[in-house]
Amino acid sequence: MTPQEFVDRTRETTPLVGVLGFAVEALGPGTARVRVPFRGDFARSGGTVSGPILMALADYAMYGALMNVIADAEHAVTATLNINFLRRPAARDVIAEAQLIRCGKRLAFGEVMLFSDGEAEPVAHVTATYSVPPQASQPVLKTNFRARS
Amino acid sequence: MTPQEFVDRTRETTPLVGVLGFAVEALGPGTARVRVPFRGDFARSGGTVSGPILMALADYAMYGALMNVIADAEHAVTATLNINFLRRPAARDVIAEAQLIRCGKRLAFGEVMLFSDGEAEPVAHVTATYSVPPQASQPVLKTNFRARS
Amino acid sequence: MTPQEFVDRTRETTPLVGVLGFAVEALGPGTARVRVPFRGDFARSGGTVSGPILMALADYAMYGALMNVIADAEHAVTATLNINFLRRPAARDVIAEAQLIRCGKRLAFGEVMLFSDGEAEPVAHVTATYSVPPQASQPVLKTNFRARS
Amino acid sequence: MTPQEFVDRTRETTPLVGVLGFAVEALGPGTARVRVPFRGDFARSGGTVSGPILMALADYAMYGALMNVIADAEHAVTATLNINFLRRPAARDVIAEAQLIRCGKRLAFGEVMLFSDGEAEPVAHVTATYSVPPQASQPVLKTNFRARS
Repeated sequence: MTPQEFVDRTRETTPLVGVLGFAVEALGPGTARVRVPFRGDFARSGGTVSGPILMALADYAMYGALMNVIADAEHAVTATLNINFLRRPAARDVIAEAQLIRCGKRLAFGEVMLFSDGEAEPVAHVTATYSVPPQASQPVLKTNFRARS
Repeated sequence: MTPQEFVDRTRETTPLVGVLGFAVEALGPGTARVRVPFRGDFARSGGTVSGPILMALADYAMYGALMNVIADAEHAVTATLNINFLRRPAARDVIAEAQLIRCGKRLAFGEVMLFSDGEAEPVAHVTATYSVPPQASQPVLKTNFRARS
Repeated sequence: MTPQEFVDRTRETTPLVGVLGFAVEALGPGTARVRVPFRGDFARSGGTVSGPILMALADYAMYGALMNVIADAEHAVTATLNINFLRRPAARDVIAEAQLIRCGKRLAFGEVMLFSDGEAEPVAHVTATYSVPPQASQPVLKTNFRARS
Repeated sequence: MTPQEFVDRTRETTPLVGVLGFAVEALGPGTARVRVPFRGDFARSGGTVSGPILMALADYAMYGALMNVIADAEHAVTATLNINFLRRPAARDVIAEAQLIRCGKRLAFGEVMLFSDGEAEPVAHVTATYSVPPQASQPVLKTNFRARS
């Protein structure tokens, strides 16, 4: 699945993707990079991006990272999501970089780092588990995405 | 702060509150009940509510629960949020019931249960910590909101 | 399974239970109360109980809460555990009260409150998910353990 | 602080460190590598390491990663810890690799990967936040430990 196919497909099934204007910049087996454009109605006073926008973005990026790993990935659903807010985002686009860490038969687990556009320091860190659809968890391309070097 | 004052205030500082149409049904010291109306563009195919809507709702309800507990609560910011999705929400309003469990000098911690309107079984469970503004964490009305009976 | 059977069984399969001296005070369908006795080698300087003791206790109590809910519960394994430390425990026994919130076909989810013996205010709050053994998740006595009243 | 100083100091203040036999293999500013030796009384039937041993190990490694970053780090306390169990550990030593991601004035946040000795694939992933002692959070050597390249 290409970034464009992923966006087209999810805009249909999940209109929120279009509402929030998510742009998928890269999609690999177990990885995804997604941007949310800055908009005034996503801001919080003082010029920052609202926390729920970051959560939505991370969830979507993690979902994208699953797309090229398991069959029937579209039926995967988030089981748990844990976010740590690390610093106040700037009033600009936010970019999510998702990486799958482990994909088992029942649960997939990964991590997302969120950055203000142009900044090196993360604004938030997310881990999430997805429930893998039972009928179609094969083929798993690889089960480990972040091994020790 | 009354439910209406809270909605008015947060709609100004955080336009997303208005975009999502959050309705605050109750606001006590350490508690809040908030409803998000069902809308087609918050749905996910198959007739359910999108996960990020639940996360946004829980975060807002928890924020509301802090309002009548600490001075300067508006400057509290979410530090961590952990959500467990428990079952597929129905295609209808979702209601969040937030309860503060502990409010310390630096961190407040609470729990939110999310329900499909009219259902007794939760669709998701959230815990969150908020960073309490240093200059204004007093008065804490009470520090414990869920003690052992 | 009675408290005594649970202790006997887990002391065999998991010697750590004996090492830590866990005492199971109550065991119901979806609930458990477990005590860890205070001991000098579990302390942290200044007279408090070490954090990992609390985590071990919560995990064990949650496991106990599953025992009378699903068949083959002994083969359930912890999938995720999230702990929030709320206040410094006193230098005395700690008691965990675990309550299952949801038991699905693949994942069980519950919550544990931890108290210093004799205190009403929790020292820590834990949520955890368990992976339910596929071959034996039936019978589920009830699927909801904490519904809205 | 050297690995040996850290072990000596923590064995005094937290006897559990000695009970569990933690060996600190490396300690840098914002990083730590710690090993727990395999022992029969840490096992779970079927030949694996008990989950609470992994949680204790991760918490200790994260604590070590803080030692050379902030003054008075010994008074830091764990605020939240989130563990995802990824695969069954082998019946052998487990190694934790901790990395601080962000150290602010009030909270430090980091990540720990846990490996069975000799394996490249993680057995568990942990994130944790520590409450930084107010009087001594300076000097922070650097605030960001995992920036985007």
